[in-house]
This record gives sequence, C-alpha cells and structure tokens, in this order.
Amino acid sequence: MIPIVSIVGRSGSGKTTLIEALVSNLTARGYRVATIKHDVHGFEIDHEGKDSWRHKQAGAAVVVLSSPRRIAVVMDVEREWDPGEMGMFWTGGVDLVLTEGYKRACYPKIEVNLTRESDPWLCAGESSLEAVVSNWKPTPALAVPFFLGSEVSRLADWMEERFLGSKAASGCEVLVGDERIALSPGEAAALESAVKSWVARLTGKKAPEIVEIRFGGRVGACGSGR
Amino acid sequence: MIPIVSIVGRSGSGKTTLIEALVSNLTARGYRVATIKHDVHGFEIDHEGKDSWRHKQAGAAVVVLSSPRRIAVVMDVEREWDPGEMGMFWTGGVDLVLTEGYKRACYPKIEVNLTRESDPWLCAGESSLEAVVSNWKPTPALAVPFFLGSEVSRLADWMEERFLGSKAASGCEVLVGDERIALSPGEAAALESAVKSWVARLTGKKAPEIVEIRFGGRVGACGSGR
Repeated sequence: MIPIVSIVGRSGSGKTTLIEALVSNLTARGYRVATIKHDVHGFEIDHEGKDSWRHKQAGAAVVVLSSPRRIAVVMDVEREWDPGEMGMFWTGGVDLVLTEGYKRACYPKIEVNLTRESDPWLCAGESSLEAVVSNWKPTPALAVPFFLGSEVSRLADWMEERFLGSKAASGCEVLVGDERIALSPGEAAALESAVKSWVARLTGKKAPEIVEIRFGGRVGACGSGR
Repeated sequence: MIPIVSIVGRSGSGKTTLIEALVSNLTARGYRVATIKHDVHGFEIDHEGKDSWRHKQAGAAVVVLSSPRRIAVVMDVEREWDPGEMGMFWTGGVDLVLTEGYKRACYPKIEVNLTRESDPWLCAGESSLEAVVSNWKPTPALAVPFFLGSEVSRLADWMEERFLGSKAASGCEVLVGDERIALSPGEAAALESAVKSWVARLTGKKAPEIVEIRFGGRVGACGSGR
C-alpha cells in the first residue's frame, strides 16, 4: 500500500505552499510523490479551443491527451472518489501520495496554518492528526509533533521515518559487483513491474513471482518473495 | 474489449472537427465515448498559478484534481502509451474510444480530409483503413466506404453497425414491469459493475457471476452468464 497523507488547513492557510516545499524536498531525496488536490467546487483544467477541450465540450465522457512524456486525463465521474480509489493512477510507481484537503477522510493528517495566529486548529484532538505545521507554537500544546513552516527538511525527515520507513526494505535488489544500489520504493516498484512484464512476455508465463537477472555474476533480483 | 477507432489525417485536415461531430452524434444516441488526442510534442494542460499546477511544477510525478463530477490527472510517463494500455481510464464504462491521430498504430482507421482536395490519402491501401471522410470522392476510388463531411449521421450509423453492433446484446437486463429498459453498453457495464461491487461488499463474496435484483416482481438482472 502506498501511504496517503493529507495536508489539511483552512482556506489560505498555506496548504499549497507546504505541499510544494514537501514535494520538492522529497523528490530531491529520490522519492516519487503524487498529489491530489481536492476541489469541491469543480474545475476547468484544459485551455479553451484546444483539441482536447473541443472533445470534452462535444460530450466525451473521458478525454486523454497523450504525449511521449506525459499523459493527461479528464473524466466524468458519477460521485466523488476517495483518494484510496485512485490507485490506478500510480502505475509509474510512486512512494507517497499527498492530498491537499480531504479533512473529512480518514487518512493521516498534517494540519498547516502559516498565516493567521488566532485561527483555532481544525483537527485538534482527532486521532488522525499526526503533526501540525505553523509559525506559532500551538497553545495549549497539542499531543502531536510540531514543525515551524521553515522546518520543511525536518518535517520531511519525520515523514520519511513515519510513512516511508516501512517501505525501505523492498523486494527488489540491484547489485553491481558487490555494491547494492539504493532504490527508492517507487524506483523498485517500477523496475520490478517492467522486468516482470518483460519476462512474462518473453516466457508466456503470467506474473512470475521471483525473477533474477544476472550479467556475468549475480546482478539483479526482483521478487516479492525475497 | 471496448472498440478503439482512430481518426487519422494530415495536419489541418479536419480531424478534431469530425471527432466533435461524431462524439455529439453518438452521445445523443446514448453511447459514452472516450477520446484520445495524440500529441507527439507534449503539452501544458493546467493553468499557471493554480494549486495543481504548482504541485506539478514542484516535481510531483502524478497530480490529480478531484471534484464531485470530474477527475483530472496529469502523470509523467517513461514512454509513450498505446491507446490499448489506457483501459484503466474507462472505469465509468465507455462504449467506444476515438483516437485523434495514431496513424502508425494498428487500430481500425477512418481517414479524414475536409480541407485540401489535392492531398493524397495517407493510408490508402492499408488493411487497417476502414473508411474515408472527405468533401471530394476519392479518385481513383478506394476499396472502403466513403462519406461526405456532411454525412456524420450516416457515418455514425455505419460505425454503430461496424464497431458497436457486437456489444448490443448486453449481459444486463433491466425490466420495469414488462418493459425492458434500453441501456447503452456503457450504461449496462457501469450498472453491472456497481451492482456487483455492492453485492460483493454485502455478501463478502468476490465478483459474483450472476446477480438478480427484484423489487416486487422481477426487476433487474445483471450477469455475463445470462
């Protein structure tokens, strides 16, 4: 399971700013991060007059824009999806999903308030509240870790330990000579998926459990059973 | 399998215009249509400065924008995807996928040229070419059906027969009293999926083959085995 963490806070409290900083920091550490922006009001994402916009205006239920490096999809849904239902979008292998909003869902939450000292905390006392980020120390104190807005790196350390630690032991090993190459969980998942599908095509066997690939000596082994 | 049909043609030949007309026409007939726009050059789909745009700029590998009626996703990919790999996007149940472009892929093709009489046909003689749409009758004649640009309704009739006909006999029946309610294949698929997942959750049994639901008398039956 890919961990999902919700960044919550009042309107204008700095959620997007914190997410930007966290995504940059964690991406620089080698993690692949997905984000979900919760928009209860609906949105327009495409540019008026573009071909894909014209497809959608004509009534297409799903519009895909596909290029060699990026895919965009706009699809109509009958009801709002929970972040947990969006797993099909993480096919490239991501290590962490950060949501902006979803304060009513049950995912671990980090509440942010970078802008108004007097605002009460939205999620104080909730069991899903895991940390708070603010420029003012909460008074009375909250029973969860507190980070200043400027402490993004320390927050990312804590998130790595808290949410990404259990994934560090991956089922995928790459050895070059005797050296083990460090892979992020996302890289390991993407490699495992690519190797396994290649082997499946080559051998006609579906979803092999354990694959070892060796060039010269022992070079790589992928498999959930290892 | 959901049929995939490629609308191909030279740049500026009227592909988007034809797709708009076909999507409108087929949607009015009760079909749910997905479209794929092939863009080899890459694209920007979001608006600068919006929260989701800021997530992507910060380095998120996948960005989802979720609202109660619509979901948008922008994801980085390592290589270009084939339309056949995009099945995960048709979760709402679509009846037909129209691609704009993909002339080198192997899907059935409709070539369009609404703008320049002298342009030679791109796919003349190719076995995947199924029809041509133009304001000028091809000379020499091609061995595939020909439609004028103004004959969208006749083209949609032909497509319904050629690509959607085999799906008309659905495994899902809804009867209100003695009256059978006509469902498009997409509606039937969406209903079947919803009912089955609801029953699976209710009974703890996975993917029931046949489900019948009756209120009063016999009202609805969903199942691929029927």
